Amino acid sequence: MKIYGEIDKVRAEVKAWKREGKTVGFVPTMGYLHEGHKSLIDAARRENDKVVVSIFVNPMQFGPNEDLASYPRDMEHDAKLCEDAGVDIIFHPEPEEMYDDGFCSYVDMNGLTTELCGKTRPIHFRGVQTVVLKLFHIVTPDRAYFGQKDAQQLAVIRRMVKDLNVDTKIIGCPIVREADGLAKSSRNTYLSPEERQAALVLSRSLKTGKNLVDQGETDASVIRAAITTELEKEPLAKIDYVDVVDFDTITPVQKLTGSVLVAIAVYIGKTRLIDNFIVEK
Amino acid sequence: MKIYGEIDKVRAEVKAWKREGKTVGFVPTMGYLHEGHKSLIDAARRENDKVVVSIFVNPMQFGPNEDLASYPRDMEHDAKLCEDAGVDIIFHPEPEEMYDDGFCSYVDMNGLTTELCGKTRPIHFRGVQTVVLKLFHIVTPDRAYFGQKDAQQLAVIRRMVKDLNVDTKIIGCPIVREADGLAKSSRNTYLSPEERQAALVLSRSLKTGKNLVDQGETDASVIRAAITTELEKEPLAKIDYVDVVDFDTITPVQKLTGSVLVAIAVYIGKTRLIDNFIVEK
Repeated sequence: MKIYGEIDKVRAEVKAWKREGKTVGFVPTMGYLHEGHKSLIDAARRENDKVVVSIFVNPMQFGPNEDLASYPRDMEHDAKLCEDAGVDIIFHPEPEEMYDDGFCSYVDMNGLTTELCGKTRPIHFRGVQTVVLKLFHIVTPDRAYFGQKDAQQLAVIRRMVKDLNVDTKIIGCPIVREADGLAKSSRNTYLSPEERQAALVLSRSLKTGKNLVDQGETDASVIRAAITTELEKEPLAKIDYVDVVDFDTITPVQKLTGSVLVAIAVYIGKTRLIDNFIVEK
Repeated sequence: MKIYGEIDKVRAEVKAWKREGKTVGFVPTMGYLHEGHKSLIDAARRENDKVVVSIFVNPMQFGPNEDLASYPRDMEHDAKLCEDAGVDIIFHPEPEEMYDDGFCSYVDMNGLTTELCGKTRPIHFRGVQTVVLKLFHIVTPDRAYFGQKDAQQLAVIRRMVKDLNVDTKIIGCPIVREADGLAKSSRNTYLSPEERQAALVLSRSLKTGKNLVDQGETDASVIRAAITTELEKEPLAKIDYVDVVDFDTITPVQKLTGSVLVAIAVYIGKTRLIDNFIVEK
C-alpha cells in the first residue's frame, strides 16, 4: 500500500493501472476510519481491481462555527485499517495541495442542498460537491462508494454525477451500527459516557417510525410525529430536524411513495448526530 | 467523420481511441463556424491523434434578454468545414440530451466572472463553465482549444481546470481577423453593411491602445482613455466597457505588469461585439 500526499503521484499510478485495463474503486473519507468506512472499502475491494481511499478533512465543507479544528484524526490507525483491508493507495493531501492561493471555483446545485442538513449547514454541500469532484478528477474511479448514513450527501453526489456527466458509478452502502443500534460515526468519539447512552434515542426513534411504515402507515406527518415524540423523551437530546423527503430530490413529501428518506439530526449535548432510513414504495 | 447527438456514442468511441493510446483534441463551439474556429480545429488536428468538435448552442449561458433564439445556425456548412479540416467526430446534441428535467447542478467561481462581460451577463460564465465541464467529462480530451477573442472565458476555463484538477490542457489560440481588422465572430452576421463598417472602430481603437503600450505607456488609465476617445468618434458605437485587467485574475490593474488583458465590449446598433489584446510585461 502506498500513501501519497501529492496529486501527481496518485494520477500517475492510476494512469498506469488504467493502461493495464484495471478498474478502480474509490472511497473518499475524512479519516478516523470506523467499520462504516471499512464496509465501503470492502465493497470497493470486492468490485474493483484497485482501491484508492482518500483521507482529507476538507476545510471547504465546514462552517465557521463547526468542528474543523477538533475533527478527530488518527492516521496511524487509518493506515493500518486500510492496509489490512487491501487498499492500494491512500491519498492524504495537505489542504494547500488541494486549494492553492488563487482557488475560487466551486460546484453547487439549485435544490437538494437546502433541506435537512442544508438548513443549518448552508455551505456544507457546496464544499462536499467541490472536493468530491476534484477527487474524482484526480482518481478517475470507475466506482465510488458512499455510506447511506450521509443520505443527503449521497443524493447530492448522485445528482451531481448525473448532471455533470461524470463517468463514475456511485454506489450507496447500508448504515453500519454499533451492537446497541447507534450509527457508526467519527463524531461519536465526542460523546461522554452519559451522552453515548442518550444517543441511542436516534436509532430507537427511527425504529418507531420504521415500525409504523411496516404496519402500513403512509402519512409522513404521522411518522414525523411519532419519531419526534420518541426523541423528546430524552432530556439530553435537542432536535435539529425530523423530516420525510423524496430521496432523489430531497423535497418534503406528504405521502410515502417512490423512494423516501426519513432523516433526523439531533444534538446530544454539543455533538450533532444524524441517522435515517429509506423506504422503497 | 461521424456526427453524434448522443453522449453515449461519443463516450464509447473516445474510450476505444484511448484504449489504443490515441490522444484527443477538443474544440467546443456554438457552431456557425468561421475561420476563427477553423484555426482552433487546425491546432487540434496538428497536436492530437483524434479531434472532436462540439456544436451546441448552450441555453444555460444565455440571459433571458439575450440572443439564444436568433443565434445563427448552419449545420450543413459546419459539417463541411469540419470534414474538410479532418475532424473525427462532431458532437451535436439536442438541449434535452445535455439538460434533463431534474438538472440543477452548476459550476461557478468567486472572482474572474464579475468584471468585464460578467457585469452585463451575470449568469453567462456559470453556464459556460458548467457546459464546458460537462463536455470535458464526455469527451475526456487531452487538450482543449479556446480562442483568445473570448479572453475572459479563456481565463475562467483555465482557472476552473486548475481549481478542479481537470486533466485537460487548455490551449489559447490567437484572434483571427477579417482583412480589414474586424475580429471574426458568429455574431458579425447580425451587422448591416453600415454597422459592419462602423464595427471597425473596435480593432482600430485597440490598435491605438496597443501603439501606446509599444511606445512604453504603462498607465492603464491613459490606455483606457485613448481607446475610449477613439470609440466615441464612431456614432453607431455604444461602449459597454473598456477595461485593463490582470489576465489571470480578471481584476483591474493600474500599471501594466505581468500578463495584462486590454478588453472592450461595444454595441454596434443592437449587436454586442468584443475584442481585446494581451500584453506580457
